[in-house]
Amino acid sequence: MQNSGSEKQNILIIGAGLCGSLLALRLGQRGYKVTVIEMRPDLRKTDISAGRSINLALSDRGIKAMNLVGIQDKIEPLCIPMNGRLLHDIEGNTTLAPYSGREHEYINSISRGMLNALLLDEAEKHDNVNIYFNRKCESVDFENTTAHFTEFDTKKEFIEDADIIIATDGAGSALRQSYYLGRKFLFSFSQDYLSHGYKELSILPGENGSYKTYKNALHIWGREAFMLIALPNLDGSFTVTLFLSYEEGDYNFNNLTTKERVLEFFTKYFKDALDLMPNLVEDFFANPTAPLGTVKCSPWHYKGNALLMGDSAHAIVPFYGQGMNASFEDVVEFDKVLDEGHEDWESIFKAYEKSRKQDTDAIADLAIDNFHEMKGHVNHPNFREKRSLEMAFEKTFPNEYSSKYSLVTFNEEVGYREAMLRGRAQDKAILNMLADGRISHSKNLSKEELGLILEKVKAETEAILANK
Amino acid sequence: MQNSGSEKQNILIIGAGLCGSLLALRLGQRGYKVTVIEMRPDLRKTDISAGRSINLALSDRGIKAMNLVGIQDKIEPLCIPMNGRLLHDIEGNTTLAPYSGREHEYINSISRGMLNALLLDEAEKHDNVNIYFNRKCESVDFENTTAHFTEFDTKKEFIEDADIIIATDGAGSALRQSYYLGRKFLFSFSQDYLSHGYKELSILPGENGSYKTYKNALHIWGREAFMLIALPNLDGSFTVTLFLSYEEGDYNFNNLTTKERVLEFFTKYFKDALDLMPNLVEDFFANPTAPLGTVKCSPWHYKGNALLMGDSAHAIVPFYGQGMNASFEDVVEFDKVLDEGHEDWESIFKAYEKSRKQDTDAIADLAIDNFHEMKGHVNHPNFREKRSLEMAFEKTFPNEYSSKYSLVTFNEEVGYREAMLRGRAQDKAILNMLADGRISHSKNLSKEELGLILEKVKAETEAILANK
Repeated sequence: MQNSGSEKQNILIIGAGLCGSLLALRLGQRGYKVTVIEMRPDLRKTDISAGRSINLALSDRGIKAMNLVGIQDKIEPLCIPMNGRLLHDIEGNTTLAPYSGREHEYINSISRGMLNALLLDEAEKHDNVNIYFNRKCESVDFENTTAHFTEFDTKKEFIEDADIIIATDGAGSALRQSYYLGRKFLFSFSQDYLSHGYKELSILPGENGSYKTYKNALHIWGREAFMLIALPNLDGSFTVTLFLSYEEGDYNFNNLTTKERVLEFFTKYFKDALDLMPNLVEDFFANPTAPLGTVKCSPWHYKGNALLMGDSAHAIVPFYGQGMNASFEDVVEFDKVLDEGHEDWESIFKAYEKSRKQDTDAIADLAIDNFHEMKGHVNHPNFREKRSLEMAFEKTFPNEYSSKYSLVTFNEEVGYREAMLRGRAQDKAILNMLADGRISHSKNLSKEELGLILEKVKAETEAILANK
Repeated sequence: MQNSGSEKQNILIIGAGLCGSLLALRLGQRGYKVTVIEMRPDLRKTDISAGRSINLALSDRGIKAMNLVGIQDKIEPLCIPMNGRLLHDIEGNTTLAPYSGREHEYINSISRGMLNALLLDEAEKHDNVNIYFNRKCESVDFENTTAHFTEFDTKKEFIEDADIIIATDGAGSALRQSYYLGRKFLFSFSQDYLSHGYKELSILPGENGSYKTYKNALHIWGREAFMLIALPNLDGSFTVTLFLSYEEGDYNFNNLTTKERVLEFFTKYFKDALDLMPNLVEDFFANPTAPLGTVKCSPWHYKGNALLMGDSAHAIVPFYGQGMNASFEDVVEFDKVLDEGHEDWESIFKAYEKSRKQDTDAIADLAIDNFHEMKGHVNHPNFREKRSLEMAFEKTFPNEYSSKYSLVTFNEEVGYREAMLRGRAQDKAILNMLADGRISHSKNLSKEELGLILEKVKAETEAILANK
């Protein structure tokens, strides 16, 4: 039973979202007998988006996973490159802040539904992969490696047996809840909610599927206490998301209860966005308000029987655009561990968690940081000066510098934890040195002058890293 | 119903441990109608210690609470002063490391059972306080302010109704579990276990209740990966606690399964302690191994209906000797908020949590830090040099310096958070300056020379605090 190399191993995957369907595809390619059971209907047949996470940002870590399973060519047509942040101030003026000084580095807006459908199609091409929908996992008996499901239509209950169970069932994972409630071992667990929630809105397409505002950017209306963002879709629309406190401040989700209040709020803070959203009020009251939570836990696995992967192990807030990318990278890292020739599933799960957890903890923390960066810091002069200096470094010395954002987003060979430590030290170095006048930035710097500044930043960064 | 000032208010307290019985006493003194329901038998009639947390360290924050309820005189005879850490090295040599350079600053070993019994006796003197035992809380309906109990003997279930419910039912709180499972609001929650567990052992009294080793200290056998500690009891015995990993290292709780292994382990690492414990093996296999966990959560309250207090809101690991003191301080802080004249319970609970949570978060983190300090740092030359310098500061300039330990333990007017921030900055300042030779310490320093070093430490501390 524990010979993990055997192709006769039955693997049960709970959840056919982005992570589960990619995992099923990869394990199918490796020859395992894979059963995937999903709570919701098949999204290829039913629209189940319901105003939540309609599109996502796909970047290098996620693309690496697409390469692993060989579908990068099928992904490309679904992608809309976003080269930077388009910052909208309260008067409606805009500034494009590139994500990188290297032109080939950008992120991609992609439809969750289309990407998930593609992954399901590809997984199902393998005879050894079977996917079932409309069956909700109620609990997992991780001692006996069985899971308890209820069929949505008939309410019929059944037990599924497997050699191993991998739960990719998201932030509300049934396996994780079974770990917590089972009290069979010491399960460290946290769920942390921000005081802010989010609501999806939309800018509808212009005539003939044209875009009503600039297509190739992630739009941000940062207002310190709250913000609005927008990502482009292939049909010319943008998915807009409002991040706002539930109860703090003059305007919050709890008190935006009338058409008049909502319009007043948008007129005051997001006038140029409101002009593009005649459908605002309708969307606002039709779409749900959802919470923003971070989940961490350990251990992810129980012996060689069960494993949490993706959001079920590490749900993060969306502000670094890394939730999907991190979950895809999970599959890449798990696949790498499968190649290491471990003797049994327990060793595999242990090795995977040992190398992976520090990185998913790091991206969770980085995502919280970026919430504050996007809401407010992007508007501050010292932050902007730091970014323009970093853009100049990346452009002029492309092999010698990567900003924190670049390390996280475009350097898939650097783990999240290393990216976090180095990136934070760089940020601190540059902000300190700008503040006390040891360096400064202007557009007129020669390459040599810029190079000297870069050396200073590098030295200060190393000093900060050594002092940790 | 919401008039919190009214003496007709019915308050249900779940749990009659240290925090619950103190709270009952204080609310009884204030005239509320208090019902306390406890899961376990009355500890005044039955021995229920079962080898767990037999004694505790009472220090200034806890003593402040005893003063609030006017029982400080009754507490004093129960206390054994511990003036410092008595460090035992592997050869059996000992060094006394004082807790403070000020002689009147020490901590007190006290019996949990005796203290709890005293608080129960004092609470029951009030006709408006009623305490019931052997009734387990199964869940709390915090919407309707009722709690569901089962009587231990008869298995009879009953519902208790109240105007407000305060849960002081410890780390495994029923109210907290109801918050978590109820999903009625966004409940942030974490439970984090150390890889180490603990087991209580004992050094029995010598002849005529004499002490077999030095009475007035907290004994520490720090061995980097694990440690043993001992606190004195009034009867001449010491309660000894082994902190050891469950599964890591050559010796761990999972593999110490035979008499021979246990003796081998103690002979190798704790020879001088073993000589005082002929009863070691018996204790080792009779007493349970218990986990070490930290619990944080928020919000603590649900509207004006229910509130978590003490370990149920913030269970911490025992390494700062602050668990009980923090819970007692909860009652002092809650009492202070009651004096502020809020209009309803919701405002009271909100104000209490707002001021209190940052402090209990801080002591939770400090307690984890101290685990590493006690296991290993206490043996390091640079740590010892720092401590000897701090002792000299506190002795020579008693009004100008308090170490982190003193801030946390002996400065009850400074909140835990402030103590943490300032204490950590001081530690960093001194260790950095010792490392790069900017300051040094020797016994021959004049008062003037010591004063100059103190000024440097203060300046560096302020610089570190400003740079945060």
